[in-house]
Amino acid sequence: MEYEEPAFFEVLRYAAGVDRDTIDMVSGNPDWEPPPALREGLHTYADADPDEFQYPASAGLPGLRSTIAERRNVDRDAVVVTNGAGEANHLATARALERGRSTEVVMTDPVYPYYPGRVSMLGGDQVFVPVADDGRLDPATVADAASAETAAILVTTPNNPTGAVYDASTMEALVETAAANDAVLISDETYDHFDYSGRFSSALEIDSTHRIVTTSFSKSMGITGFRVGYGIFPYADVAAVKTRHMLTNVTGSRPAQAAVHAALTATGPEYYADTRAMLRDRIDAFTGALDAAGAEYTRPDGAFYVRARLPGFDGTMAAVKRLIDETGVAGMPGDAFGPGRADWLRFALVTPRVTEAADRLTTAL
Amino acid sequence: MEYEEPAFFEVLRYAAGVDRDTIDMVSGNPDWEPPPALREGLHTYADADPDEFQYPASAGLPGLRSTIAERRNVDRDAVVVTNGAGEANHLATARALERGRSTEVVMTDPVYPYYPGRVSMLGGDQVFVPVADDGRLDPATVADAASAETAAILVTTPNNPTGAVYDASTMEALVETAAANDAVLISDETYDHFDYSGRFSSALEIDSTHRIVTTSFSKSMGITGFRVGYGIFPYADVAAVKTRHMLTNVTGSRPAQAAVHAALTATGPEYYADTRAMLRDRIDAFTGALDAAGAEYTRPDGAFYVRARLPGFDGTMAAVKRLIDETGVAGMPGDAFGPGRADWLRFALVTPRVTEAADRLTTAL
Repeated sequence: MEYEEPAFFEVLRYAAGVDRDTIDMVSGNPDWEPPPALREGLHTYADADPDEFQYPASAGLPGLRSTIAERRNVDRDAVVVTNGAGEANHLATARALERGRSTEVVMTDPVYPYYPGRVSMLGGDQVFVPVADDGRLDPATVADAASAETAAILVTTPNNPTGAVYDASTMEALVETAAANDAVLISDETYDHFDYSGRFSSALEIDSTHRIVTTSFSKSMGITGFRVGYGIFPYADVAAVKTRHMLTNVTGSRPAQAAVHAALTATGPEYYADTRAMLRDRIDAFTGALDAAGAEYTRPDGAFYVRARLPGFDGTMAAVKRLIDETGVAGMPGDAFGPGRADWLRFALVTPRVTEAADRLTTAL
Repeated sequence: MEYEEPAFFEVLRYAAGVDRDTIDMVSGNPDWEPPPALREGLHTYADADPDEFQYPASAGLPGLRSTIAERRNVDRDAVVVTNGAGEANHLATARALERGRSTEVVMTDPVYPYYPGRVSMLGGDQVFVPVADDGRLDPATVADAASAETAAILVTTPNNPTGAVYDASTMEALVETAAANDAVLISDETYDHFDYSGRFSSALEIDSTHRIVTTSFSKSMGITGFRVGYGIFPYADVAAVKTRHMLTNVTGSRPAQAAVHAALTATGPEYYADTRAMLRDRIDAFTGALDAAGAEYTRPDGAFYVRARLPGFDGTMAAVKRLIDETGVAGMPGDAFGPGRADWLRFALVTPRVTEAADRLTTAL
């Protein structure tokens, strides 16, 4: 896959240009409140002494790193706080490739579009394995695709865009395959707080020097614009990762880190449970209306996207634009995620208007 | 030069471990107040709607980009807001090298230590030209070092660590040399608000497709930890730079960008003039005491560092540690900036205790 301007830019521009009310189900921007302690944390930080406005430690504010390490039950030295999961994935992929032993990165089709573009930018080669219709990943297909040429296996769980959640045996098999080929599993777990199946299993639970976990607070706290994420790396790789982080960004943004630290410390599990419950209601409402209309769709086990196949609309940008024109509902073209889902559309449940959206879709179909 | 863990980490660790009061003149962390509107901007942002907590446009908040473009008298499309000047320099250097026509990056010796490490990380080759004892850069030495192998010429003005300010004719000659070799001048102007000589001349004043200007608000607003900077790029390079920015960081941190935008709009020239006046007083106090003791030093034309040669102390880490032990003043070893200044020490004027520091130094000598 060639990296292009993200398709959601084009969809949003188009939606902004049409003369009708459009329900935005395009990008993964939470529309819900962040934890109250996040706002309080920003206020507190705004009144801090000037020395708290200076460079945080490059690997992250010590308190934030410690809290993360404690919560994840890892050594603080293994944690590098990054500019969102995006930079964590960047550092992880670069680290896998810079060892110079191999050049291939195995990804799924469909895939989160930044991954393949980043692999190419960093001089790697893209390899894709298909997933099942419902999004399940058969680890045997990854084992078949992996070889001595494999530098990394890069997966997302819970998955964007499929909504699949990979279970413990899948994760174990993926790490085994990585280890067997002297490669590394990079497990992007950005949606780890959005598991409706109870089957989510972090790669962190597997003790191996062949796995990296990346994640962020962007979705779990509803703050995609803050850019606070982290990676948990094998000890042997941490020094190289920190050097690349330093030479790329110097360090992350401190107001955001300070606010996230305050929120992480003060926010109990009920905040995340409430968000999950709200999203589950949205999933019910949206898929219920699709059911009623006889449309084909996949109910997500995790994350907050619904894949649907709408009669008369394939998964192209042209179909997305026509859907906006005819129904006032904006989704993402499936083909933006690779050829494996070129016939469907992705709808992000980041609006309270999901019932209205589903009604519009089913009325028009 | 090999990239190593920044020397200031080691100095700060050492200073923290000794059992005496130490005056920190090590890193370039401003100790003064940010503009009041910066704090207000953070408070306002902390109460914003959740949609303002989501991804800002990858190239920067539109209002911030527009304000920068207006102030710098360039088209908004030429501005990419970055995670500090560090990322702006990263993107600029990567862009120069990814054209694939040439691999060398010409830098000065002494040099800001991140530059050579970054060049190597990005696959480029390091070339150094010496500067005069007082920090002046003779553009003829750059012209001699440049060739068809040159991808970029990378300079800092006002300079860290020398304190030199490059005048208009120097900047013109550097851009000419870049153009003559189909290379690009990358002018890091992070200290542009700290010119005491009146001779500072931004590369932006030269209309050329062979120059990139990078800078940040880190020093001018006293907020090195916010990570808001920008690059001004030739139009032909902007798309590639934006793609790399996206695939590296997705986007920058919005709380920081929102606060900087508020401060940039509301802060008049007197804030910057007051900071300059305060720093000039510190320069006078510190160099006055060095004068009285007969120590050799260079008075900076710009930025906020004084280079001094202290009898009995060369520019090594060992000498810096001994100086902490004997005087309680912590500086940076000159050899961290390259072999060209291996016999001197750099003192950052980021403490109100400069007179006390100078007294301690001169008493001990």
